[in-house]
Amino acid sequence: MMIITEESSNKVFGGWQKVFSHESKELGCKMKFGVYIPPQAETENVPVVYWLSGLTCTEQNFITKGNSQGPAAKHGFLVVAPDTSPRGCNIEGEEDDWDFGTGAGFYVDATEDKWKTHYRMYSYITKELPAVIAANFKVDHERAAIMGHSMGGHGALICALKNPGMYKSVSAFSPICNPINCPWGVKAFTGYLGEANKDAWREYDACELAKKYNGPPLEIFVDQGKADSFLEKGQLLPDNLVGACAEGGVPVVMRMQEGYDHSYYFMATYMADHFDQHAKFLKA
Amino acid sequence: MMIITEESSNKVFGGWQKVFSHESKELGCKMKFGVYIPPQAETENVPVVYWLSGLTCTEQNFITKGNSQGPAAKHGFLVVAPDTSPRGCNIEGEEDDWDFGTGAGFYVDATEDKWKTHYRMYSYITKELPAVIAANFKVDHERAAIMGHSMGGHGALICALKNPGMYKSVSAFSPICNPINCPWGVKAFTGYLGEANKDAWREYDACELAKKYNGPPLEIFVDQGKADSFLEKGQLLPDNLVGACAEGGVPVVMRMQEGYDHSYYFMATYMADHFDQHAKFLKA
Repeated sequence: MMIITEESSNKVFGGWQKVFSHESKELGCKMKFGVYIPPQAETENVPVVYWLSGLTCTEQNFITKGNSQGPAAKHGFLVVAPDTSPRGCNIEGEEDDWDFGTGAGFYVDATEDKWKTHYRMYSYITKELPAVIAANFKVDHERAAIMGHSMGGHGALICALKNPGMYKSVSAFSPICNPINCPWGVKAFTGYLGEANKDAWREYDACELAKKYNGPPLEIFVDQGKADSFLEKGQLLPDNLVGACAEGGVPVVMRMQEGYDHSYYFMATYMADHFDQHAKFLKA
Repeated sequence: MMIITEESSNKVFGGWQKVFSHESKELGCKMKFGVYIPPQAETENVPVVYWLSGLTCTEQNFITKGNSQGPAAKHGFLVVAPDTSPRGCNIEGEEDDWDFGTGAGFYVDATEDKWKTHYRMYSYITKELPAVIAANFKVDHERAAIMGHSMGGHGALICALKNPGMYKSVSAFSPICNPINCPWGVKAFTGYLGEANKDAWREYDACELAKKYNGPPLEIFVDQGKADSFLEKGQLLPDNLVGACAEGGVPVVMRMQEGYDHSYYFMATYMADHFDQHAKFLKA
């Protein structure tokens, strides 16, 4: 199951931005993911950083627009950027909405009958993909970090909080901090987890998980644009994360950035800061 | 004719990446162009850098994937990124080829009947667009530079060589250095300028122009990937530019970069170097 196929390869900042495909066992379909291989990986096992993208994205958005390869080369991080959902599984309705189904896996393991066979992005990100990476690249998974944007910021936060010690560092841009209390999250969790099973919802909510976090020290680093239209629409709820982290004793740096929106322009601006943040923990 | 309409605006690296549209008189159609406004433009007239894109591009490719805003903010350059051809002019066949017509204006003023009304990219870039920019932004056109990629590298070179003193600095990634001697150039010049009029061809060929350059000192700075598939196909001909520059006494820095291809990954890697190069002349 660890066989991967190279789809593209481009030299950038002295390393290689590649895209691979593989047959995912968790998701029951062919998946693509980006891998930036820094120059340092030619001679040593390097730390690995997972990037989780937001709604509607494929593996391409981050690798073309994220301004990530320069900072990754500087620190010598291998950066893995998976797709955001299963694709082409022929589930009725999977293509109907931009914020549910294809492009919107929400990093949960679905329990509803219609979705539970394929929509297992949580297990894909935390189990299958790390095994695939470990089998194929010169990485040191003892030094792993995770980060993401919007839906992927939510994904990064829950992966880190649910697996104490697995990721040494976590950061996010404009994360959906409290999905059980915002329209995007309620729609997704209702669809994938069922309306009734609120216990399952809470197990995928960063605020709920932060309140009860019990593990090695974990610092959460977040950039949030103050001109982000989804902030005013109540989809992101960063204040709730700050409050939950206080309750759970989890340190959080929440940087509210004047004038910035929800786009990759915002992320490109501060991407280097996030890699510097991860370096504090991955190169300690 | 100087009225522009803002199509989008995103804060990035402390400044603003905007896209505008306007009715171009030279081209007889609506055109879009990107403008990066650096933070420095809030308080002073800043130098202006023109970016010319390659085949098939719109104004979007460079502004989303070029890694330009960070370097532009560092130096305080306003960066203008126009589209690569007229659009929607209803010329028979304009959409047939990816390397001729739409997305492939080649930065010439066409003389063939079918194209001469709209395909006037040379005059658009060197006359109309600078006037539009001067009328709408806080720039100092005494400090202007021009750069581009592939077809746009050709465009940047000919604009600088044909207008001594107008651009203080010129650079290119993977430029089509000698269009009269490569398949892309021969096809475009045959179509836009006519097969017989070889004198006109030479007036849009960087090598021919470099040989007879007579003006203030102009240094040409070029990055060319050695793994660029169009290099081996004989579309780019950098050696011919080096030879022509020697003949004309024009200094050229031709950096052949091991392993890099023709993509934006290559450009993102070295974009900061090009802005540093322009800064030597624009901030002197």
